Amino acid sequence: MRDVAIIGIGVTKFGELWDRSLRNLFVEASLKALDDAKASKLDMIYVGCMTSGLFNGQEHLGALMADYLGAAPVPAVRLESACASGGQALATAVAAVGSGLYDVVLAGGVEKMTEVSGGKATEALGAAADADYELFFGATFPSLYAMMATAHMHAYKTAREALTAVAVKNHFHGSKNPNAQYPFEITPEAVLASPLVSEPLHLLDCSPITDGAAAVVVVPLDRVKKNKRAVRVVGFGQATDTLALHQRKDLASIPVVAKAAEAAYKMAGRKPKDIHLAEVHDCFTIAEIMSYEALGFCPKGKGGELILKGGTRLGGKIPVNTSGGLKAKGHPVGATGIAQACEIVAQLRGEAGERQVKGAKVGLTSNMGGSGASAVVHILEVNK
Amino acid sequence: MRDVAIIGIGVTKFGELWDRSLRNLFVEASLKALDDAKASKLDMIYVGCMTSGLFNGQEHLGALMADYLGAAPVPAVRLESACASGGQALATAVAAVGSGLYDVVLAGGVEKMTEVSGGKATEALGAAADADYELFFGATFPSLYAMMATAHMHAYKTAREALTAVAVKNHFHGSKNPNAQYPFEITPEAVLASPLVSEPLHLLDCSPITDGAAAVVVVPLDRVKKNKRAVRVVGFGQATDTLALHQRKDLASIPVVAKAAEAAYKMAGRKPKDIHLAEVHDCFTIAEIMSYEALGFCPKGKGGELILKGGTRLGGKIPVNTSGGLKAKGHPVGATGIAQACEIVAQLRGEAGERQVKGAKVGLTSNMGGSGASAVVHILEVNK
Repeated sequence: MRDVAIIGIGVTKFGELWDRSLRNLFVEASLKALDDAKASKLDMIYVGCMTSGLFNGQEHLGALMADYLGAAPVPAVRLESACASGGQALATAVAAVGSGLYDVVLAGGVEKMTEVSGGKATEALGAAADADYELFFGATFPSLYAMMATAHMHAYKTAREALTAVAVKNHFHGSKNPNAQYPFEITPEAVLASPLVSEPLHLLDCSPITDGAAAVVVVPLDRVKKNKRAVRVVGFGQATDTLALHQRKDLASIPVVAKAAEAAYKMAGRKPKDIHLAEVHDCFTIAEIMSYEALGFCPKGKGGELILKGGTRLGGKIPVNTSGGLKAKGHPVGATGIAQACEIVAQLRGEAGERQVKGAKVGLTSNMGGSGASAVVHILEVNK
Repeated sequence: MRDVAIIGIGVTKFGELWDRSLRNLFVEASLKALDDAKASKLDMIYVGCMTSGLFNGQEHLGALMADYLGAAPVPAVRLESACASGGQALATAVAAVGSGLYDVVLAGGVEKMTEVSGGKATEALGAAADADYELFFGATFPSLYAMMATAHMHAYKTAREALTAVAVKNHFHGSKNPNAQYPFEITPEAVLASPLVSEPLHLLDCSPITDGAAAVVVVPLDRVKKNKRAVRVVGFGQATDTLALHQRKDLASIPVVAKAAEAAYKMAGRKPKDIHLAEVHDCFTIAEIMSYEALGFCPKGKGGELILKGGTRLGGKIPVNTSGGLKAKGHPVGATGIAQACEIVAQLRGEAGERQVKGAKVGLTSNMGGSGASAVVHILEVNK
């Protein structure tokens, strides 16, 4: 496989965007990325989206987006792996450019979630879990992650304060990101005072319902060898696990992320200690803590300590979710994996403004589907 | 890109399979394909499925199928391009093996359509069209293809008898396929006596609602160089067009198939006259006639003549849809593109039984999404 780089990025505002449509959001992010890349041609489009059928009554997103982007007859297809759909679109684009088949590929992600009521949105998102063996019995994602949080607190004496600290940190980071859905800080008291959704998870432990899109342009490295704004994709890894939580051996960890990371580290020839910053999948606060452990940023069971000591805050030893994460930036499901890559690219270019991590040269994205049934990890590096 | 071959195929019975589930069907086809391939490892799984969210309340099909296949943590992802989802899964698998990233890849397709009522199924399938600009105004797929049929009949004086002949031929072929949903012959009189769905299309001009799955195993050619049951994938092509029919310049043709075919012929170094048999996307009888023209099997406007002269019947100059096609074999949407490849592989191996095309050495599959907004064409050849 030949070496590959990201040369353009584009992100829309994330939020409740009542006046924007699914296609309109995707096209905005894509045009920004193509403009940033100064791309004059396009060979293939990969669209990450989880459940536009249930949210928007619309499938066939590859052709739809190629059409509205004015790019048809360029081939296009949608990739779906629940909340890891964006990461999968990126991984597939990297493999396709790596194969030599295409030279300029757009990998974008989108979700327009506010077209249905809150209850319907929870139902649509539930389609990432096992419909026959989890949803049928009343499970929802907050309740699945609540069980995982309880298991982690039981196994490792993880403090409630650790969950709270994740939400507070990510809102602090998000306050520096104008595209975030909630670009403001919150207090630990506010987290605990927010309604209990599923014990121990409060409303402010949960990522929100969001509209938004993100896109990147992937090209062979040899086309952008001397371009300092190009960012190299040096490794990626993917894995799966049982869809249903009750079939896992351990509820207090997410082995799918560890497996995907192992493959990515191996491909990149890197170790956890080489990573300067990361965007991880904090769909719920406990997921961020478990991700620290799965990615090797701290030993198993020590994720709570890492956040409480400030290790993952801007200025800490490994800042995590400088974008605000899914919690504060928002979580338009299919867009999330691509938006993570956009944040790391901006950081490695030194273009992250107030939230810039100084000297960042190697970054990681960790995008996860469902309660940990699929994961995609990418490792990005500055262009030497 | 290195050369690639299909070494295993598997297809389930197609039909109204009330006692079978989405996952169960996929696993059956996959195990058959893996067994046929004598595969001892698996590196990646691509699942083609159009709209399991709307049919089954289930997304995240990559991980679900990896899980139920007992293959997790092998990475897996779903590909969606409406009715061309299966073809896209195959194309993505071919590119991934071609890149050198994976050595043994499963590309499968599935749709379980009978879990909802007929009206709901038409609505779910409608998600392949433009939800905002077609469905909202009441369009359904039979009505869109009826307009295309009318345009073709007007532009080229295509006879009603030509449409009828497609249905009759495909049921004749399907009568020789034990896995077909409707493995029996029909008469021209029966086609005309069947209820009018959308003028000029009668019920027997339309492909049915079907449950089913199909799978193939893709490997590098150098691993199976001396294996006569391996079939080489010598070319593939993809393209997109406007999602909405009213935005096309011409309703009497499907340029997206012509563009995908052009790319596939170029990659394979082949011309239409080199093709010995083909599986094409006869979601409605008119679509098969337009496909003949788009694929270069006859001049533009002459598709009606080709079928009426028997050129595409078993024993004709280029047999089309020896499997029974979508019409008689059935059309479990996400499975269709893969099932087409399974038929061509069986034919090129000389294992097609009563429907064997003698001396078949080069075959083509043409899988289309929506009313012609996306298409994927593959060219397969016997292993020398």
